[in-house]
Amino acid sequence: MTTKPEEANGSRKRKPRPQGLEDWRQWPNYEAATLGLRNYWYPTVWARDLGDKPQGIKLLGENIMLIREGSEVYALHDRCPHRGVKLSEGKKVFPGTVSCPYHGWTFDVTDGRLCAALPDGPDSPIVGNVSVRSYPTEEALGLVWVFVGDEKPTPLRDQLPEELFTNDYVAGGRITPGRYGNWRFAVENGFDEGHARYLHRDQAFMMFRQMPGWARTKIVADEDGDWLFRVQESVEYESDFPGLGKWPRRKITQVAQRKMTPGEVGKRLDPTIRSLNLPGHISVRLPGLLRVAWTTYLHFEWYVPEDENHHRYVQYAVRFKTGPSDFAFRLRYWTYIRWLFHGKFTGRDAWMVEEMDAPPERLFRPDVSITRWRRLVESAFEPKQDKKKPAPAKKP
Amino acid sequence: MTTKPEEANGSRKRKPRPQGLEDWRQWPNYEAATLGLRNYWYPTVWARDLGDKPQGIKLLGENIMLIREGSEVYALHDRCPHRGVKLSEGKKVFPGTVSCPYHGWTFDVTDGRLCAALPDGPDSPIVGNVSVRSYPTEEALGLVWVFVGDEKPTPLRDQLPEELFTNDYVAGGRITPGRYGNWRFAVENGFDEGHARYLHRDQAFMMFRQMPGWARTKIVADEDGDWLFRVQESVEYESDFPGLGKWPRRKITQVAQRKMTPGEVGKRLDPTIRSLNLPGHISVRLPGLLRVAWTTYLHFEWYVPEDENHHRYVQYAVRFKTGPSDFAFRLRYWTYIRWLFHGKFTGRDAWMVEEMDAPPERLFRPDVSITRWRRLVESAFEPKQDKKKPAPAKKP
Amino acid sequence: MTTKPEEANGSRKRKPRPQGLEDWRQWPNYEAATLGLRNYWYPTVWARDLGDKPQGIKLLGENIMLIREGSEVYALHDRCPHRGVKLSEGKKVFPGTVSCPYHGWTFDVTDGRLCAALPDGPDSPIVGNVSVRSYPTEEALGLVWVFVGDEKPTPLRDQLPEELFTNDYVAGGRITPGRYGNWRFAVENGFDEGHARYLHRDQAFMMFRQMPGWARTKIVADEDGDWLFRVQESVEYESDFPGLGKWPRRKITQVAQRKMTPGEVGKRLDPTIRSLNLPGHISVRLPGLLRVAWTTYLHFEWYVPEDENHHRYVQYAVRFKTGPSDFAFRLRYWTYIRWLFHGKFTGRDAWMVEEMDAPPERLFRPDVSITRWRRLVESAFEPKQDKKKPAPAKKP
Repeated sequence: MTTKPEEANGSRKRKPRPQGLEDWRQWPNYEAATLGLRNYWYPTVWARDLGDKPQGIKLLGENIMLIREGSEVYALHDRCPHRGVKLSEGKKVFPGTVSCPYHGWTFDVTDGRLCAALPDGPDSPIVGNVSVRSYPTEEALGLVWVFVGDEKPTPLRDQLPEELFTNDYVAGGRITPGRYGNWRFAVENGFDEGHARYLHRDQAFMMFRQMPGWARTKIVADEDGDWLFRVQESVEYESDFPGLGKWPRRKITQVAQRKMTPGEVGKRLDPTIRSLNLPGHISVRLPGLLRVAWTTYLHFEWYVPEDENHHRYVQYAVRFKTGPSDFAFRLRYWTYIRWLFHGKFTGRDAWMVEEMDAPPERLFRPDVSITRWRRLVESAFEPKQDKKKPAPAKKP
Repeated sequence: MTTKPEEANGSRKRKPRPQGLEDWRQWPNYEAATLGLRNYWYPTVWARDLGDKPQGIKLLGENIMLIREGSEVYALHDRCPHRGVKLSEGKKVFPGTVSCPYHGWTFDVTDGRLCAALPDGPDSPIVGNVSVRSYPTEEALGLVWVFVGDEKPTPLRDQLPEELFTNDYVAGGRITPGRYGNWRFAVENGFDEGHARYLHRDQAFMMFRQMPGWARTKIVADEDGDWLFRVQESVEYESDFPGLGKWPRRKITQVAQRKMTPGEVGKRLDPTIRSLNLPGHISVRLPGLLRVAWTTYLHFEWYVPEDENHHRYVQYAVRFKTGPSDFAFRLRYWTYIRWLFHGKFTGRDAWMVEEMDAPPERLFRPDVSITRWRRLVESAFEPKQDKKKPAPAKKP
Repeated sequence: MTTKPEEANGSRKRKPRPQGLEDWRQWPNYEAATLGLRNYWYPTVWARDLGDKPQGIKLLGENIMLIREGSEVYALHDRCPHRGVKLSEGKKVFPGTVSCPYHGWTFDVTDGRLCAALPDGPDSPIVGNVSVRSYPTEEALGLVWVFVGDEKPTPLRDQLPEELFTNDYVAGGRITPGRYGNWRFAVENGFDEGHARYLHRDQAFMMFRQMPGWARTKIVADEDGDWLFRVQESVEYESDFPGLGKWPRRKITQVAQRKMTPGEVGKRLDPTIRSLNLPGHISVRLPGLLRVAWTTYLHFEWYVPEDENHHRYVQYAVRFKTGPSDFAFRLRYWTYIRWLFHGKFTGRDAWMVEEMDAPPERLFRPDVSITRWRRLVESAFEPKQDKKKPAPAKKP
């Protein structure tokens, strides 16, 4: 396929073309990926919150137990093979192990091997003959990462934004397990071009921002095809809708505001963010990470599949300063960003992700952001030499 | 079928005949009508409670959004075709429209046509190419009525009790959405001959009434076949049950009471009610409306199908007086009828409608009221020239 | 099959053998008995709590209504055949009967025969033509017993511990309906060799007891094959687990304790319990009764199947003394046993029965108790002349 018609929807003259079928047949791997994309790293809990008391989580339909042993974190399949009890209900009896609460079957956290079945004595013949699946883990960005898949794990750093490794920064964030809605609705809502201008318009976080009414948008990929960017070719701040009236109405808080040119905005950008040369301030990448470039900080959000109807929602705000501004950003995060942005603002998104009920669906021009994202997922399944080939999660 | 054996069950000499199968195969259209009878008008909400804030309801398995525009009320299918969000979660942005909360897709409330997709600008090519289903609506008796079906709607008045259009009256009522139980159990319980004498006997609303223990009953239809009436051929107030004892026991509150002859009762009847010449004080009609003629007022109740297991329960008490008695009836309604009748008394019915679990079932003589009602539903499906032909609701 | 390898697992030299498949195919009747074993007596409610107000319970997937009439207790199928309402929601209107709350269908509690349909009068032709199933009942040990099955009931006493009929005793107990988990998990947990030493080790009820870390155990049956006993061939109190460390750690409360020889324990045994000559202090029998012999009292628990995921849990502590020690044991029961044993201790079992999720399963040596119990159930289905042949419960 050489033409990519949905990538350039800016021309006003073009006749409307169908935006695709009302179902998802044209994205078969995406349609099948109800439980998420396998063979990726996923963020789970704050590293500081994980100690030697095991924690149980759900990831891509699988129950997983997390535990810390010294400076390392480990993940095992959260089911004792004996009678099916969750290991995360158990505890650490000996260093480097976790014991099932029921009969004290004791597993080595590093590899899942059964190293004792306590009530059967030291000579228990089952020791060494049973093990539970272990998952690759990493600690990075203050988060515990788990690799779910059947292939050899790629380096975690390959899958994360490079700027988080090459700069110092201070961060604040919020993890919401069990957020309702399939993970695909969450990604689509995050990268969705159209809804922000309507759904979020009257929210407190937007009070002192100039928000366009609508825009002509195209989607561009970066060089190595990791990120997709929403790029606005033109924006309108107030329009006359025939037979209806003007929309959007100017907010009273905006009356005195001056619209800044993109150039002016650029000058006020944080230098590190400016150095990234992002073609658009919203971008998305596999397996479901959104990046929003505000003027002074970056916001990331991961949509981590849990089961068919729930995902873990990880919000992460990054300020590329340290020293005194460390404290200043923390203060701003805890008094403002966490409340109005990571709480109220994205809470309205949570409402829509919960309400969404598609397919059937009927897409419109701004949904080029959604269809392009779906194609990105499909492309990950294409056989290429140096491409990851994730498989859709199977029901466990 | 020329004999109608279940219509006359008064003879004590007749041998017991089976009252039908234990399942509903002999009423195939009735059995299929799990979600209600289509091509009828249904009452939904109080007209005074509907403004320009949309309300979402469920009707015959369909999600429907109601909204008022000036003096008119409108109903649309409550699902934005874009991504499946409910329109009733949205709001009125421009006069005569409702906008989806997610992307501001804006629909004309009169016909469901998409008239703007706000974040795509005034030239959005999708405008005019999408619409949602609209439903015929009427405002009458202080209620908002919606016609659900595939045929041209009949006039609402044809389906309502004529006396409500030819007389002045004052009314009080109660709407209960989400009442548990399939609508058919609710109708059957309402028109059911037998249960009142047992289930309701000891209720406060019955304290000063003489209630027979049992009766010989027949079911008669009025001339044009709209209403079915329960007519008591004989009543007994206390009987000897062999091997068990006397039942019912006289209530202490009834000791001084005199049984009135039907003639005496007739004289005390409200003149308008008397003029109706009702052959029985309980009657039922399609698609599920019960009328109870008390001495001084009429009580109506509609059983409006919501889904397989729930119905909207609309109670409506009518006094054919205006002027000072208007206030007197309102006082009586709010201090007595609403509490003891529309609350406590029919609350016990709600309990039984919730408990009912049939088929299988094993009917007995008084259930002639139920089988006759089922036959009325079946007859509505028979091909006749001037008959409505409703189809059972399909799962949406 | 002449060898019974799982009955003797004491030899340390033997090579590990597979403990069976990971599913339950080798116990086909057991696997099928999701709803319980039919043709047995089951305890239900305390006899003192059953009066002439009907009570509804669930037993082997069937809804059953219990009622007392004078000194006798009765059980009927808890569904009025008329419209499916539960008889246990009704009441006793005439002696010896129960009436459905809806239409007063009145059933003889002794045989389930319809003896009046009140609102149809004394000559109702349906009387005598309808009945509901009745269940054999007995009152014994202060409990109401119901026989569920299709065969002629065996005498209740044949199914109960003989010592409860040949001795005076005082008892205390606790009935928990709706305990989560299939009844088979509850039995298996009760007779399970291994979990006690790990799961219950740190509980208050165990504070002053010496609990071994592990044991070599064999399962023996009594002469007539009614009871299976867990017999410990050797016990260890603290062991070195290679690469892990010592387990179990001595509890501080045990430091001063002296391990008693079995002979010493025997001398302190209650004389009646000693006279039973039990080969082990834990035993189990069909259809799911556990007996624990403590030094001074016996503890019984019945696991009564309710539905696929719930059972009624009946705990019963018996002290073979009367007179002044009657009061002493009651005091001990209500201040100590009921709280720490029948509440806290078995509450932790309830947690595991709820968590268990098998098959698949992977058994280990101590699970000989479980596999032997499963074989006992299978043996009950073998065609023998003087054996009961229960059939697995069918879904009702």
